[in-house]
Amino acid sequence: MVTIILASGSPRRKYLLKQAGLPFKAVTPKLNERIDAGKSIRETVQRLAKEKVKSILSYLPQKEKDWVAGFDTICAYKGRLLGKPSCLDEAKEILNTLSGKIHSVHTGIALYTKLSSKIETDVCTTRVTFRKLSLEEIDFYLNTDEWKGVAGAYRIQGRGELFIHSISGSYSNVVGLPLSFFYGMLMQYQYPFHKGEKSSGGNFCLKHRK
Amino acid sequence: MVTIILASGSPRRKYLLKQAGLPFKAVTPKLNERIDAGKSIRETVQRLAKEKVKSILSYLPQKEKDWVAGFDTICAYKGRLLGKPSCLDEAKEILNTLSGKIHSVHTGIALYTKLSSKIETDVCTTRVTFRKLSLEEIDFYLNTDEWKGVAGAYRIQGRGELFIHSISGSYSNVVGLPLSFFYGMLMQYQYPFHKGEKSSGGNFCLKHRK
Repeated sequence: MVTIILASGSPRRKYLLKQAGLPFKAVTPKLNERIDAGKSIRETVQRLAKEKVKSILSYLPQKEKDWVAGFDTICAYKGRLLGKPSCLDEAKEILNTLSGKIHSVHTGIALYTKLSSKIETDVCTTRVTFRKLSLEEIDFYLNTDEWKGVAGAYRIQGRGELFIHSISGSYSNVVGLPLSFFYGMLMQYQYPFHKGEKSSGGNFCLKHRK
Repeated sequence: MVTIILASGSPRRKYLLKQAGLPFKAVTPKLNERIDAGKSIRETVQRLAKEKVKSILSYLPQKEKDWVAGFDTICAYKGRLLGKPSCLDEAKEILNTLSGKIHSVHTGIALYTKLSSKIETDVCTTRVTFRKLSLEEIDFYLNTDEWKGVAGAYRIQGRGELFIHSISGSYSNVVGLPLSFFYGMLMQYQYPFHKGEKSSGGNFCLKHRK
């Protein structure tokens, strides 16, 4: 398979691509993640994902530019952005907002392919329902330090999962890279994923033969 | 926190309890996982989870019997059980069934508490929507061997996530132990989870002070 350049330094995104078995090389983009007021969340996450890809394309050698992908994830509640908390107070405020409510997680995906010489973008959204949390539970969670450096101040792949009643949509999107959605984009732009796949045949199972 | 006895040998369940930060000791139950015809899926998973707990209680020393939890996970499509495939043919048939469709994952939870001296049971259900898979994609997946030993012949925590369009409900339930649901049961039966939690205070963040 062809190596994908992941325009991200996020260990979570690397973990997910590894889980998916996709060959990749992670390169951290040089970017100031500025959020423009007045723009929709969908526009914002696509722009930021695109800027990450552009940043990488600007200094990557030509021969490595086959497939470059960037992602940007933002949480939102009633149209209000819930970014990465800058301090404990802000994390507490965010968790108070999420408690007992449904919020959305949006990931912008940007994919550059050499064949098209364009950056295609799209957005994946997951709805997340939080349990009603007591102040004691929020304090417990803040003490774990999981809130640091993540949009929405929780990690679904950590203890945060205890507080998530349910989700509707893609799980990996909430972690930061919607695998199935991204896979769909790769297929759409003809990434050679299954090329040369041998048939599994299946003629060695006598028990199950009808 | 008090140690929970996990009546399971499943690495996935151990991983999830570890993720949740719950102190536990895993003990593999001695059980023949028999499925009775004519019983509902909800009854079946609760009975199997309960039998796992009973198996452990029968030989566990009295002092270790404070909290014992068992789980049993089954996939179902249109009321038809999709258990662990016994061979490649069966895995292929299951994945063909799931392709492009919505199926359900049910986990029966059984929880013994010394205080009640009873085994309480409940069921958590998640709906999983698969992408429409080509034969090439199914062959690709079968070659990864992820289908082995898991209900429904896929691992959402592995490459299976590529094929899952969306879920509705608990993610960890699909892995095999619904963390938030189980946490709710622990709270209901007064497991001392947050006892002695210190307040996070939050008076060291000047930036966010209003």
